[in-house]
Amino acid sequence: MAEDRSIAVDLLLTNADFVVTCDKAHRVIKNGAVAVKAGKISAVGPSHEIIAQYRSEVQLDMSGHILMPGLVNCHVHAPMTLFRGLGDDLPLEKWLFNLIFPAESRWMRSSENVYLGALLACSEMLLGGTTTFCDGYFFEEQVALAAEAAGIRAVVAQGILDFPTPDCPNPERRFKRAEEFLSGVNQTDMIFPALFCHAPYTCSPETIGTIHSLCRHHNIPFLMHLSETSEEVNSVKAKYGVTPGRLLQSLGVIDRHCIFIHGVWLDDDELKTIKDRGSRLVHCPESNLKLASGIANVPKWLDLEIPFGIGTDGAASNNNLDMFGEMRTAAQLHKGIFLDPTLCNAAEILHSATLKGAEVLGLEPLIGSIEPGKYADIIALSLKSPHLTPLYDPLSHIVYAAKASDVRHVWVGGKQVVYGGTLLSVDVQDIIDSVEKLSREILKK
Amino acid sequence: MAEDRSIAVDLLLTNADFVVTCDKAHRVIKNGAVAVKAGKISAVGPSHEIIAQYRSEVQLDMSGHILMPGLVNCHVHAPMTLFRGLGDDLPLEKWLFNLIFPAESRWMRSSENVYLGALLACSEMLLGGTTTFCDGYFFEEQVALAAEAAGIRAVVAQGILDFPTPDCPNPERRFKRAEEFLSGVNQTDMIFPALFCHAPYTCSPETIGTIHSLCRHHNIPFLMHLSETSEEVNSVKAKYGVTPGRLLQSLGVIDRHCIFIHGVWLDDDELKTIKDRGSRLVHCPESNLKLASGIANVPKWLDLEIPFGIGTDGAASNNNLDMFGEMRTAAQLHKGIFLDPTLCNAAEILHSATLKGAEVLGLEPLIGSIEPGKYADIIALSLKSPHLTPLYDPLSHIVYAAKASDVRHVWVGGKQVVYGGTLLSVDVQDIIDSVEKLSREILKK
Repeated sequence: MAEDRSIAVDLLLTNADFVVTCDKAHRVIKNGAVAVKAGKISAVGPSHEIIAQYRSEVQLDMSGHILMPGLVNCHVHAPMTLFRGLGDDLPLEKWLFNLIFPAESRWMRSSENVYLGALLACSEMLLGGTTTFCDGYFFEEQVALAAEAAGIRAVVAQGILDFPTPDCPNPERRFKRAEEFLSGVNQTDMIFPALFCHAPYTCSPETIGTIHSLCRHHNIPFLMHLSETSEEVNSVKAKYGVTPGRLLQSLGVIDRHCIFIHGVWLDDDELKTIKDRGSRLVHCPESNLKLASGIANVPKWLDLEIPFGIGTDGAASNNNLDMFGEMRTAAQLHKGIFLDPTLCNAAEILHSATLKGAEVLGLEPLIGSIEPGKYADIIALSLKSPHLTPLYDPLSHIVYAAKASDVRHVWVGGKQVVYGGTLLSVDVQDIIDSVEKLSREILKK
Repeated sequence: MAEDRSIAVDLLLTNADFVVTCDKAHRVIKNGAVAVKAGKISAVGPSHEIIAQYRSEVQLDMSGHILMPGLVNCHVHAPMTLFRGLGDDLPLEKWLFNLIFPAESRWMRSSENVYLGALLACSEMLLGGTTTFCDGYFFEEQVALAAEAAGIRAVVAQGILDFPTPDCPNPERRFKRAEEFLSGVNQTDMIFPALFCHAPYTCSPETIGTIHSLCRHHNIPFLMHLSETSEEVNSVKAKYGVTPGRLLQSLGVIDRHCIFIHGVWLDDDELKTIKDRGSRLVHCPESNLKLASGIANVPKWLDLEIPFGIGTDGAASNNNLDMFGEMRTAAQLHKGIFLDPTLCNAAEILHSATLKGAEVLGLEPLIGSIEPGKYADIIALSLKSPHLTPLYDPLSHIVYAAKASDVRHVWVGGKQVVYGGTLLSVDVQDIIDSVEKLSREILKK
């Protein structure tokens, strides 16, 4: 008997109909396999090659499945999942001022509720194939704890505003709050602390400048809603005489730390500045549609080669955290607007939900594609259902036909957190029961 | 013991968290129940009332579920499901002339393939909560047979064009083909024959006039793609000097038999004529976006009170037959375009996918809502998952948060065709295997 020269690994996923790597070349491997060791990808390739080179006590046959990197949701307010569908089809001010802000100040003063809402969000995201998300909210320590409990990777950005917030009732303490957060949450390869300077109309130039300095000092992302609505643009213009993008430019804060969310109303010059300074953007098409904010000029972003990710935004304004739906909307919407069916093609949109999303968050060296050396954040989609039959092109299938419910297995850092559509890390029924109980109280008020 | 004065029925669905009736008043019943006898709804109301008044040997506890009418998909080319994803992100002409038309003339000459594609489509639709669809294609007898086998209600409209088609290679026989179809397919309460006069640019005035006369004579729907693309409008203008809508008006065919599909480029006068003459429209937002046809002015349709339904279009151009996704897109899209979050509210959009959809197809007396006397076309959505938690408003939840995969049970005319997410009427695995085999041949050519 010949000596076994194969390398021992922790996990072998073999015989996948397709491994959609989402690497830079959009490589797709037919009958592919992935070898995982110590949480990271050792190798990816044709099944027969991987099986010849590696061995593992845990080997799963993935026939009838696509393997692909876990999705990267670049903009979430996870705890707000508690307010999913609390007022739809309403004018923005009515929704915000009569429903959401009162609900936040009433219910989000409790860090337990923040944790519960975040845990619900993490459950929905993992079950739907998202393995990394970028969050912005209050009591963001709790979001970090929820993400850890659920086993999902997260950028957790503490929200800072000039107004009283649930976790900082005295706005004068806001910089203290930011520092407190940063010293309280340790960066690991699962949890990445950041700051979320809410928006140019809720944060003064002093706040923006100070928070940006903190981000630069700690070398962490500076997140901000930017040019989401025309009302925002008009109010900033009225106050400062310039558009929000130009205001930030004049404050000298547009740089490689910045992740700007929405960007619906950014003009060509603002986009060029963002590109030149190495900032990044996040596209939230469904939230922008539903809240009637408008439609970002994503074909322009692609032209300018500005790295951008895709985000669902909070479930209060979407009303889900489903990245498959968000990809489909992103791929379809701009074709219809610009009357060009070649815009925002499946490969581009899939990249913005994986590799580019990781780049936006500064995590591209760690995640975003199935490549040796990266963490094994991998999802398996079952292909055996009528709505995924037939299959001509796995890549366009993922964007245009697949659904969150097709996700059968999810690994984060090589650890299986979803098995056969069931979440292993936390008790979903328990979370649902607790949220239902709380929602009955919320509805009463 | 008191005499049992309750009425015996065939099926009692009790304790549903909500019965969303989709009747004209949008009535929603908390802890509701439905009694079904001989395929029709005997009663709907609060569980305790229904249980007191009716008894059945088959009683299902629907706690943790929403009961609602099955969805009505007003525009499908069911057999084209065989071409799902066969070329995405391509210019329309390239897609049509290099891929779809050659594939149709090569593979759809076989009535067996048409039947197989239709069966696949029916499976996807039933599993996703659609209980009635309106189809337009060739060999439409096969679609009728597939619908019967699957147990789904269908309007089957035989496609007529001036060009050679798979089932009518000699266009001179096209009127003969239409009559042959109508004499071959009997109308029942499950299958409703109709004619599908493809489009103003593929059918001459003679064809349009003759087919419309046939529809009037048989009192059946006259279906037509109308004003789908600006190219269509321009080509009709170039040929006839008027827009497609005005061309039809001049031919005297706009009346209550007409169901016009897409209507993206109809102007105000054309819409007014459609309203005045009692014609109806079908909105296919995802197909219109993906093929870059444009965006129909649905808020105007609502203003004018033109009855309209929602359609997925064929899976070759969508790429799914998912009415939940289609509702969400319809509800979100126009808000973003017109910058008004109150447009196309959840109740309106849910109606166009149920009661209004039934009205568009002329089936409102039979289906479209959970009301006594109508057929028991009912679906049960499971509420026990993170993405449907919490629940504040069941109606907006259906449109903005629910997914096709939440459909657990489906009844058509009181007969259960989906149980626990499994299709009972046909062998799904067998259909998938056959389609996969065929698709490998299609891919080779």
